[in-house]
Amino acid sequence: MAAHEARKVLRGAGEATVEVRLGSGVTVGGGAFTVIAGPCALENADQVEKAATAVKLAGAHVLRGGAFKPRTSPYSFQGLGEMGLQLLAEQGKRHRMPVVSEVMDVSQLALMLDYVDVLQIGARNMHNFSLLREVAKTNRPVVLKRGFGATLEEWLLAAEYLLDGGNDQVILCERGIRSFDNTLRNTLDLAGMAWVKERSRLPVIVDPSHSTGVRSLVIPMALAAAAAGADGIMVEVHPAPEAAMCDGPQALTPEMFGSLMQTLPALLHATGRALARPEALAAVGGASR
Amino acid sequence: MAAHEARKVLRGAGEATVEVRLGSGVTVGGGAFTVIAGPCALENADQVEKAATAVKLAGAHVLRGGAFKPRTSPYSFQGLGEMGLQLLAEQGKRHRMPVVSEVMDVSQLALMLDYVDVLQIGARNMHNFSLLREVAKTNRPVVLKRGFGATLEEWLLAAEYLLDGGNDQVILCERGIRSFDNTLRNTLDLAGMAWVKERSRLPVIVDPSHSTGVRSLVIPMALAAAAAGADGIMVEVHPAPEAAMCDGPQALTPEMFGSLMQTLPALLHATGRALARPEALAAVGGASR
Amino acid sequence: MAAHEARKVLRGAGEATVEVRLGSGVTVGGGAFTVIAGPCALENADQVEKAATAVKLAGAHVLRGGAFKPRTSPYSFQGLGEMGLQLLAEQGKRHRMPVVSEVMDVSQLALMLDYVDVLQIGARNMHNFSLLREVAKTNRPVVLKRGFGATLEEWLLAAEYLLDGGNDQVILCERGIRSFDNTLRNTLDLAGMAWVKERSRLPVIVDPSHSTGVRSLVIPMALAAAAAGADGIMVEVHPAPEAAMCDGPQALTPEMFGSLMQTLPALLHATGRALARPEALAAVGGASR
Amino acid sequence: MAAHEARKVLRGAGEATVEVRLGSGVTVGGGAFTVIAGPCALENADQVEKAATAVKLAGAHVLRGGAFKPRTSPYSFQGLGEMGLQLLAEQGKRHRMPVVSEVMDVSQLALMLDYVDVLQIGARNMHNFSLLREVAKTNRPVVLKRGFGATLEEWLLAAEYLLDGGNDQVILCERGIRSFDNTLRNTLDLAGMAWVKERSRLPVIVDPSHSTGVRSLVIPMALAAAAAGADGIMVEVHPAPEAAMCDGPQALTPEMFGSLMQTLPALLHATGRALARPEALAAVGGASR
Repeated sequence: MAAHEARKVLRGAGEATVEVRLGSGVTVGGGAFTVIAGPCALENADQVEKAATAVKLAGAHVLRGGAFKPRTSPYSFQGLGEMGLQLLAEQGKRHRMPVVSEVMDVSQLALMLDYVDVLQIGARNMHNFSLLREVAKTNRPVVLKRGFGATLEEWLLAAEYLLDGGNDQVILCERGIRSFDNTLRNTLDLAGMAWVKERSRLPVIVDPSHSTGVRSLVIPMALAAAAAGADGIMVEVHPAPEAAMCDGPQALTPEMFGSLMQTLPALLHATGRALARPEALAAVGGASR
Repeated sequence: MAAHEARKVLRGAGEATVEVRLGSGVTVGGGAFTVIAGPCALENADQVEKAATAVKLAGAHVLRGGAFKPRTSPYSFQGLGEMGLQLLAEQGKRHRMPVVSEVMDVSQLALMLDYVDVLQIGARNMHNFSLLREVAKTNRPVVLKRGFGATLEEWLLAAEYLLDGGNDQVILCERGIRSFDNTLRNTLDLAGMAWVKERSRLPVIVDPSHSTGVRSLVIPMALAAAAAGADGIMVEVHPAPEAAMCDGPQALTPEMFGSLMQTLPALLHATGRALARPEALAAVGGASR
Repeated sequence: MAAHEARKVLRGAGEATVEVRLGSGVTVGGGAFTVIAGPCALENADQVEKAATAVKLAGAHVLRGGAFKPRTSPYSFQGLGEMGLQLLAEQGKRHRMPVVSEVMDVSQLALMLDYVDVLQIGARNMHNFSLLREVAKTNRPVVLKRGFGATLEEWLLAAEYLLDGGNDQVILCERGIRSFDNTLRNTLDLAGMAWVKERSRLPVIVDPSHSTGVRSLVIPMALAAAAAGADGIMVEVHPAPEAAMCDGPQALTPEMFGSLMQTLPALLHATGRALARPEALAAVGGASR
Repeated sequence: MAAHEARKVLRGAGEATVEVRLGSGVTVGGGAFTVIAGPCALENADQVEKAATAVKLAGAHVLRGGAFKPRTSPYSFQGLGEMGLQLLAEQGKRHRMPVVSEVMDVSQLALMLDYVDVLQIGARNMHNFSLLREVAKTNRPVVLKRGFGATLEEWLLAAEYLLDGGNDQVILCERGIRSFDNTLRNTLDLAGMAWVKERSRLPVIVDPSHSTGVRSLVIPMALAAAAAGADGIMVEVHPAPEAAMCDGPQALTPEMFGSLMQTLPALLHATGRALARPEALAAVGGASR
């Protein structure tokens, strides 16, 4: 990658990782390990409420959920739209967790800004340069997923569009690439994540759910991401995965997610790190700030 | 691919290929071989005029040229925008060739419709479902490029978004995929093209320029596409490739393009086919329609 | 590729392609198009006889057939071994066609040399350097298939092992690589074939059977290979594909193969080339040489 | 994968992982984490002695080193051959570490059995079925590396050749596959490793050196492998990587390796596991067995 191409995403000598502030005191990139969790798609009030409560109790820092779903087939469930965003924002406030959701198109951007703390740009849109330019004009934090057909360099240059447009609150998210082996949904590129972490000033997180597509592999890959130095994970949790409208086979149950959250502290400690503070938990139940 | 997912792109028993009408009497999919040619990027009046004249004289049926360029780096040339579209439309009219150019975003769509006969959806936007839905609402013909990270099934389902939205004037364009071998720009998947041609009612063309990235391989791959049964090609021709602002190394010179056009008729004849009629050539020089 | 690594496979300025002599007057690399045909696996006397007669009558130049089969599973049919080689050699003599078969291991080499005119090194053995070194010590012509996981450069360097060992009677054979799209058996890399043809002094042929795995795509890809400048093809033909013990779904019927052979001359003529002479046909029936 | 194809590598309900016995009390697959370390290529007595001492002191369980090197180019260093094996065996005995080295061909097998405790089948030979069948006839433990172009299923079926041939002392080793992103040497497929670990009764280890090709990524990937549940690692350590005759850029220095060995215990403990016992260390210095 020519230096003139990636002026702003590369780390200067001795430069620290950008600490991206997501709201409610939660940050990514400051050294601690941040956990974003929630359902793939927002389905209804009951599901969102149960998912939010479960991930909060287990110690998640950020709530995720898709309201607009990019689907390969036009006949698949396309998401709840604005109603989903309302449910997400409501649960985020209730549990004092910042919320993140995917923006698929420039035309949805104004609406998204009303409801979410963090914008997600999905894998299929990493090369949607018009969207990158518009998102850059907001000062909202962004999770930029790597395209499943994108090189590490292209991923960094997509982030460069955001930084060059004025927004450096960018979190990179590795979520697996395509390889000749289709046994699993994608091939999680943890070494690529570590390579980017070395070179870029942006924090990097890992999505162990989409990258594998298989529930039993999510915890091993989440732990591997932590051991390899990622700044956090974004993981799918559903109160009843067998009934999920989208990607149920890769969703953790609340129990599995709880088990993951209990394993992480000691594992992070082994490499001199820690889970981000679960401070906001005390707030559940109503204490005012 | 489940039958319920691709209801409209699959070919019924005994069903003919859709013949897409591009304007000025040019069609794709009726059995003959159609040639779309022109520069990668529209650069200035002189370049567009020279390119258009050259490809028309050699027998091209459709003029191509990019006004909005999706570029990996934010610091690369991003295209002339509306001025480019004006130059393209002007040369199209002058030479009685329909023109095609890429639309990158929903917000550009109204502008594009003022200038181009055929909309192109680029490889990086094949999964931009918002764009697919909006383009489907126009009745303008569309060239839908395969994403370089997209399976054949996903490509067909992207076309299904267009057909399901009401627009069946869709031409599929194979332009190479990514593989582990990066010697060439992409890996041209001609067998995949032939597989899609068998299954879909949509015509399929091939881009031998982006798929190889190497000038000397463009003619061999264009001939291979014709031999393998493609409905046409989209090929880059530049009056002075060494001075091109974008992708010069893969552009044919006018002389090379002329040589290709002279080889095609006999090669197509060997498989019982022919080049689409070059009728409109007579009009150059000013005869009114 | 560093010049010091591929000293002998690269083409010098103005240097002609090596014309590899296979026996019975058949060559590959002299400009004409050579056709190698026969069943995937040699199964029994009747099958070999029928296949040989069919491909000879249709105009094939070389007879192929596998006696030792590399199989992914230890429980699949592993080939007839020496009995298969006897059947192959017998039919080759009868029809005055040189015969080619795969050698899987150094320990089989002496046996193979007793029966075959041309040694084939299969895709899974392209990186079997011990085998390359031993085959190099024979002066027998070799068909070196590209590994399905090998880059173009690695393929040329595998050939360099043969040339460096003293054997320059080497034919390169493109047979498809692996990509993320598993719709077809492999992804045929015709542009890679053309790239190698430009750079190497060795002739290059194409296997349209293994590369696609689908009968209906074999003829389109064989024609595409001819149009793109390959020196020949190696294609699977079985007298009764539905009963084949190996790879039946990709085998041409004798009728389909006949149709292909009738299409090739005009198609090659369009690019100034021709099918290699079918001279030996007259000999069938017993005329002495 | 059809059940009839992989009869012996799949894990039955409730079945434990095979505990492979390497010698000197070292096993792989019994639950603890085993570390194989040493130089890529055996170069001379001094280098082997320094490497062996360094890895032993840091706590490695098994000594590795290549005497026969599969090299893409015929002009690269091909290994010391038998002299290398002698040096390796000598250091293994001195430090009471079993030793492992790659066998490239059936013809080398008898020689290898004289010197090594564990046979390695390299990535380029995973599909060398003749070699698999011969190695199966020995009762020597085997490290079977995954081919860089092989699917998970093909890897298991290659192991099936060994088990079906009578040898179940097989350790699978993930070492990275090829993907479209060539930034790193290979794409380490840790999720694939975890998938195989779930399904197979064989232990699975990870090679973080060849999979990345970059020294700074070796420790992160070794830790990730441990966190994801691998039974061990095989890692390259060189006393002076900058002077290595083979793959120096990916070799750990003795200091880096020491640091890795100090981090592993706490990390393994976090998931309820431990490093295999370093018992034999006491023997260095001459105590008789």
